Amino acid sequence: MASQGGTSRTNIGRKPERASYDRDVVNAILDAAPICHVGLVREGLPVVIPTIHARDGDVIYLHGSPAAGMLRPSRRQPEQMCITVTIIDGVVLSRSARNHSLNYRSAVVFGRARTLSDIDLKARALRLVVDHVAPGRWGTLRPMTEREVRETEVVVVTIEEASAKARSGGPLDGEADRRLPIWAGVLPLGLTGGIPAPDPEVPAGTTVPDHVLALADRWTIPGTAFPGPS
Amino acid sequence: MASQGGTSRTNIGRKPERASYDRDVVNAILDAAPICHVGLVREGLPVVIPTIHARDGDVIYLHGSPAAGMLRPSRRQPEQMCITVTIIDGVVLSRSARNHSLNYRSAVVFGRARTLSDIDLKARALRLVVDHVAPGRWGTLRPMTEREVRETEVVVVTIEEASAKARSGGPLDGEADRRLPIWAGVLPLGLTGGIPAPDPEVPAGTTVPDHVLALADRWTIPGTAFPGPS
Repeated sequence: MASQGGTSRTNIGRKPERASYDRDVVNAILDAAPICHVGLVREGLPVVIPTIHARDGDVIYLHGSPAAGMLRPSRRQPEQMCITVTIIDGVVLSRSARNHSLNYRSAVVFGRARTLSDIDLKARALRLVVDHVAPGRWGTLRPMTEREVRETEVVVVTIEEASAKARSGGPLDGEADRRLPIWAGVLPLGLTGGIPAPDPEVPAGTTVPDHVLALADRWTIPGTAFPGPS
Repeated sequence: MASQGGTSRTNIGRKPERASYDRDVVNAILDAAPICHVGLVREGLPVVIPTIHARDGDVIYLHGSPAAGMLRPSRRQPEQMCITVTIIDGVVLSRSARNHSLNYRSAVVFGRARTLSDIDLKARALRLVVDHVAPGRWGTLRPMTEREVRETEVVVVTIEEASAKARSGGPLDGEADRRLPIWAGVLPLGLTGGIPAPDPEVPAGTTVPDHVLALADRWTIPGTAFPGPS
């Protein structure tokens, strides 16, 4: 990734060659990450809450259920939030301790959050959140009732600034270290699915839908084989 | 997990039955998570940075490399940080949209951060960080030089308050929804290793060490088979 200059808030001082301020790069990482970590300030102190998100153009939707009280922004004025996503792609095992690293893709977004009240916009946001984690799932479900939509808190965060950072590739040991008889390389990692476990009330013999099977390798790195543990 | 009562900062208002303030439960999640997300306040605004951590008793060590400028606390007075870790264990696919969820384990820690200066404490912290991500790795490496230790920033966060939250198990649809002909269940997920890729300068035929092979299923859920994508 090439450094193209951020603002004081997003400017990446450490290893700027790994940084990007390109919105398409940021968006691809936001869309690929199953969850995000939301940073808030509460009584002057930092709080970080994990939750599910969905991006839609220049906004990110969060839904209130996982930590309703904490995530809820003021109804009177928008609140600044920081949303960070991180995808781990591998462990970089170098010969020297200090060159150990992870391969990863991360995005840091700053924006203003407000609570959504329009019922149609809320329903749309909730569809995007469900389909973010399980693409194609929403269309197989019974429609949400208006009451269900009303009872679910939806927060919309308008992206104001964003940056991405990523590392890929192998160890970067110095020349002297590269001669040491120490195994070095990368262990690729990806969030990988196991065998789908049906709910006990699903009739025996029911076929597992394709959109569920597709989740098993949704978060693995394309082109990399991930065999199960032996 | 049983709710045992937290402080105003850690008290979990939403789904308290999923919460725990037991330090052993929190520690187990901190130790099992490959990375953490660190929350800071910078010029009054929230910032969330992903980084590698290691817990040692009641403190968490962070190292400065990934985002040195941002992570560095004041040298004059300790800084409040929030450290959150989240492990995704599965996607919960319900018949109703609003009962969709993830199975997960997360921990939220509040504490005071300061920069470590003692060279021996720093070296110990860096060993714990390397062995947190790749247990047994440190012992196979050449020792860090004093200069390398000096050049690496290490932050120590003393845990003051902590809470854990977790979800496991299947969908929790209401009775009417359970009769719908919609596939429901759980897709288990775990961070799973692929085939180790040796550095080009590792002599051909070199055996991959056991501590590297062990990483492949370090973050999968015990007892769950994770077959690779076909």
